[in-house]
Amino acid sequence: MTVLPNFMSATVDEQRLARSHDDLAAFGRASRGGVNRPALSDADIAARQYLIERATAIGCSITIDPLGNLFMSLAGRDRSLAPVLTGSHTDTQPSGGRFDGAYGVLAGLEVLTAIQHAGIRTRRTIETVVWTNEEGYRFAPGCMGSLAFAYPAERERLLAATDSMDMTVGEAVARMRRALSDPPERPLGFPVSVFVEAHIEQGPILEQTGNKIGVVTGIQGKKRFEVTVIGEEAHAGTTPRARRCDALLAAARMVTALERWIWDAEDVARFTVGQFEVQPGSHAVVPGKVIFSIDFRHPDRIFLEEKSSRFLEICEPLAGGCTVSVHEIGFTPPIAFAEQVPQAVQRAAERRCIPWMPLLSGAGHDAQHLATVCPTGMIFVPCEKGVSHNEAENATSSDLATGARVLLDVLLDIANS
Amino acid sequence: MTVLPNFMSATVDEQRLARSHDDLAAFGRASRGGVNRPALSDADIAARQYLIERATAIGCSITIDPLGNLFMSLAGRDRSLAPVLTGSHTDTQPSGGRFDGAYGVLAGLEVLTAIQHAGIRTRRTIETVVWTNEEGYRFAPGCMGSLAFAYPAERERLLAATDSMDMTVGEAVARMRRALSDPPERPLGFPVSVFVEAHIEQGPILEQTGNKIGVVTGIQGKKRFEVTVIGEEAHAGTTPRARRCDALLAAARMVTALERWIWDAEDVARFTVGQFEVQPGSHAVVPGKVIFSIDFRHPDRIFLEEKSSRFLEICEPLAGGCTVSVHEIGFTPPIAFAEQVPQAVQRAAERRCIPWMPLLSGAGHDAQHLATVCPTGMIFVPCEKGVSHNEAENATSSDLATGARVLLDVLLDIANS
Repeated sequence: MTVLPNFMSATVDEQRLARSHDDLAAFGRASRGGVNRPALSDADIAARQYLIERATAIGCSITIDPLGNLFMSLAGRDRSLAPVLTGSHTDTQPSGGRFDGAYGVLAGLEVLTAIQHAGIRTRRTIETVVWTNEEGYRFAPGCMGSLAFAYPAERERLLAATDSMDMTVGEAVARMRRALSDPPERPLGFPVSVFVEAHIEQGPILEQTGNKIGVVTGIQGKKRFEVTVIGEEAHAGTTPRARRCDALLAAARMVTALERWIWDAEDVARFTVGQFEVQPGSHAVVPGKVIFSIDFRHPDRIFLEEKSSRFLEICEPLAGGCTVSVHEIGFTPPIAFAEQVPQAVQRAAERRCIPWMPLLSGAGHDAQHLATVCPTGMIFVPCEKGVSHNEAENATSSDLATGARVLLDVLLDIANS
Repeated sequence: MTVLPNFMSATVDEQRLARSHDDLAAFGRASRGGVNRPALSDADIAARQYLIERATAIGCSITIDPLGNLFMSLAGRDRSLAPVLTGSHTDTQPSGGRFDGAYGVLAGLEVLTAIQHAGIRTRRTIETVVWTNEEGYRFAPGCMGSLAFAYPAERERLLAATDSMDMTVGEAVARMRRALSDPPERPLGFPVSVFVEAHIEQGPILEQTGNKIGVVTGIQGKKRFEVTVIGEEAHAGTTPRARRCDALLAAARMVTALERWIWDAEDVARFTVGQFEVQPGSHAVVPGKVIFSIDFRHPDRIFLEEKSSRFLEICEPLAGGCTVSVHEIGFTPPIAFAEQVPQAVQRAAERRCIPWMPLLSGAGHDAQHLATVCPTGMIFVPCEKGVSHNEAENATSSDLATGARVLLDVLLDIANS
């Protein structure tokens, strides 16, 4: 009978974890200190090559699934048991930060490294995963890899999605697999015992309250819309106001009215118009068409549905001769995580005397899809001023290491159960 | 002593003029019946090649100046006299119509053809010119060719202007000259006796009043601005409203407030926001920067200056934590044409019993620069519903021919004086 080493001997190395972040940020480095690493781009492929080398060096096996989700597996003693999964994503927004996504992957790699260096062999296999195209910037929808993992029937539809250059996800994945020397294939949707995702909070609450760990209890819901305003192109110098159907002036009024309509005293609702395209986009032509996006999030499904059901009604009286249509292009209902993982995170924080609080995630994450197939949870760590999706995104090495220590405990706890 | 033929024997051919418009519209044909023919593009070069062939066939000589302005000259009897110039431009807005610019060039070509077919030799040389880059869409500023002609000292600055692919005007002109088999060079700013530009009205007034000829008395003034709103990029799902500096919401409020500020009961002022660029332009990121254009026109210089002097003051209280700056990038003062050409146009219309009215041009035209170097005027013809800078732009063959007949009379009148 084997004597198991005390798993508290596995130790997260704060400096090593910080260096990992520096290393990864080199792939797709942007001009203002952040990262521009579109999903499946050369920079993303190089980032994954780096992770493969790190993981292989500590004895992990590498597999990849049809969506390009990449798994780094530290084998457990009982291969018949479903593995414990952790991880996040390596793609970023066009001017993204060094921690969003990267932290969840690197904390997972740090945990595997700490376990391997301590000579521990867990009962279940532990795997760190890189989900493909979480941000949804290069390809729509976001959280694509985890979505396909949770709903393998969506595979063909997702592989056919194209970027702005008309490259499909399928082509981009094939290109990546060749560049990574074709790791062995893994099926979508294999059994998983639990999924735990570490992430920066991307909000200001931990920093403001002085807590170091957010025990994430769920993810707020999100609706996405595309609003199309069609007017009439006309000459900017000659067309009297009375004869114009100016799509831009109409759209500007609509955006302002929608902002007011969503306004809540509690400041819980999140309303963002991030895209606003004007056609033809010449200074001397009255715009004939504007398409703008709405990203609308709230923890309460009823609030989301009631408010958004009246978007068209809000816009129409402001159209001023233009026509307006509101098209819903995405709905992710609010998610509440099952108790198992949040409780394990809370226990781990308490055992280490780390101040923690329950939190609801404002952002969508791959965890929302995994939550539909296995017990799932997230660990949030503070980030500076809550700034994210911004090159200035920042988090301290110490806070990152604290989160990784809690992740280590949770994974060992569950992998040995 | 030569007996001069009666110049009324020169006849504009309505069908030939209509066919010329069909022919020219094939170069850069757009999907909805209009034209996309950027200045000095392949389509523009092909259009000019077509004009050269037509002009050469009736015995015109072809010359080109350093800005690529193209001259088709029907020689007069007295080469020592400054020529009479007519013409307009062949470039279009990205989804432009078949008549804006094209009509002035083709009416000029039709007049040369009519004169040549009638066997008339005028005292002064008559030339039809294609001015380069009137629309200002590919290169800034617009009316570039005529500007350089009127102010040759500007030549180097204008040749160095670049398009969005960083090609300079100089390079694009050199490329065109090679493609057109290098016509002989003409200097910028050679002496001109008068300039007459025929153009569709691009407004609804002739159509509404039933007049067929607009005797243009001047061109309204125009100011262009670029407004930059700088906020802070942030995550759309996590950043509370109170912590956002949303450049788009601020810009939308500003556009609406500026629209109200410019509003005049007489509907004379023209206020257009034609460009509105959002950074980073991702649906899930709170916009950190918006740059929008203002095109503001009015016949009264004082109105233009007083209203625009307060743009910043209007915007600042609406910035909501963002910063805003207003940068003036262009000012064309209102122009009043000298009496000679407008009077000649009026006389020609009256002689032919064509209903006419005086008009002020709402749009800028190459004529505004020529007006600073020689007596200048414009002839407007009706266009359907006043629609222009739009693929649906339309004018009847009959109205186009009526304008060309007036142009013929005016040019013969002045060329024989």
